[in-house]
Amino acid sequence: MGTSSAALEPTPRTTLKRAPDRGTYDREAIHAILDEALICHLGFSIGGKPGIIPTILGRSGDTVYVHGSTANRALRALAAGGDACVEVTLIDALVLGRSAFHQSMNYRSVILYGPMREVTDAQEKLEALRVMVEHAIPGRWKDVRGPNVQEFQRTMVLALDIHEGTAKVRSGPPIDDEEDYELACWAGVIPLEQRPGVPASDGRLLPGVDVPAYASDYRRPGESRS
Amino acid sequence: MGTSSAALEPTPRTTLKRAPDRGTYDREAIHAILDEALICHLGFSIGGKPGIIPTILGRSGDTVYVHGSTANRALRALAAGGDACVEVTLIDALVLGRSAFHQSMNYRSVILYGPMREVTDAQEKLEALRVMVEHAIPGRWKDVRGPNVQEFQRTMVLALDIHEGTAKVRSGPPIDDEEDYELACWAGVIPLEQRPGVPASDGRLLPGVDVPAYASDYRRPGESRS
Repeated sequence: MGTSSAALEPTPRTTLKRAPDRGTYDREAIHAILDEALICHLGFSIGGKPGIIPTILGRSGDTVYVHGSTANRALRALAAGGDACVEVTLIDALVLGRSAFHQSMNYRSVILYGPMREVTDAQEKLEALRVMVEHAIPGRWKDVRGPNVQEFQRTMVLALDIHEGTAKVRSGPPIDDEEDYELACWAGVIPLEQRPGVPASDGRLLPGVDVPAYASDYRRPGESRS
Repeated sequence: MGTSSAALEPTPRTTLKRAPDRGTYDREAIHAILDEALICHLGFSIGGKPGIIPTILGRSGDTVYVHGSTANRALRALAAGGDACVEVTLIDALVLGRSAFHQSMNYRSVILYGPMREVTDAQEKLEALRVMVEHAIPGRWKDVRGPNVQEFQRTMVLALDIHEGTAKVRSGPPIDDEEDYELACWAGVIPLEQRPGVPASDGRLLPGVDVPAYASDYRRPGESRS
């Protein structure tokens, strides 16, 4: 989808009314946040009642993929044309201002809206499954057994084309009311990062199977800032 | 709310159809997951269209609090009686099975449903703000300037009583198809934890103000498992 423009068009629900300087419609910024997130939060509405599923995602170009069981009520409603929203948030730091009101966090978030489409073309579906496996663990796909016919049929893949949405980013120190800088109160940021530990091998590994580098040196893209 | 029972009553939308052994309605389990989460994902529906706001939360007994600007469209819709859902997810590990189908994550998640109520009683509202500050940074409230009249009036607090919902937990090694254990493929888990870094003091601190222990030794409750 190389013809898409570099920025999304704002819409009424993606126009930020508060702190608009924290928002961006830039596709590259949106892609980078999506790519670093391990999961997304998939919002749906059935009979006017909201629901959310936390789920693995993947991105290929301007398309976000999610998947789940073909029996999943929410995925079925979305496949049938229901509106969706996809949200991801990365927490980079706690922000300690000098007042309760200015306690905050540094974060990078994306929210996307739109109808989703069920991916029924076998080739796109297999590619989407590959993209999701590689999204979480780059390098993994070549080592695992691919989906068999039953798994493929039991799995529903949904696609959201990145068309309506926005990213929000807060970074830097607290921003306090001018008079509060006179307070003898510590202020600053506590950086947070999601750090991988030492891989634990499964108890039933065949002899001689080593931990692959993508597991022993695991890291997210763009790790880490405060 | 000491009279509430130890477990939530299942409802049609909180009855898990897949992997029901991963679900629990136990209040203590639900509370522990809520308490460890830095943010929640607040789902709403306006005109049948779903939306999600990532936001700070706090818990007091069987009540979850969130807050935001009184101008916020979603919070206003929820205050007016719209249905809400509140979701939190903690990622504990990546789970690498021997097949693409069995790639997974270890996680602890909670989803709660219900109408929210706007907290208008000044005493409960102030207490809710305290609970939210302390939720993210235990020990912080006593050191910061409390909300002034303008801040208090510009802030909307919403409460969700924990009544309908469920927790889901996956832990442990991958669970592969029996025949896949013959594959010469590494399998196991990569633990993940959200780790705090060294606090960075704000550039305008008054002389002699030290980093408090709650910042230099910051940790989440129940940190960390895989």
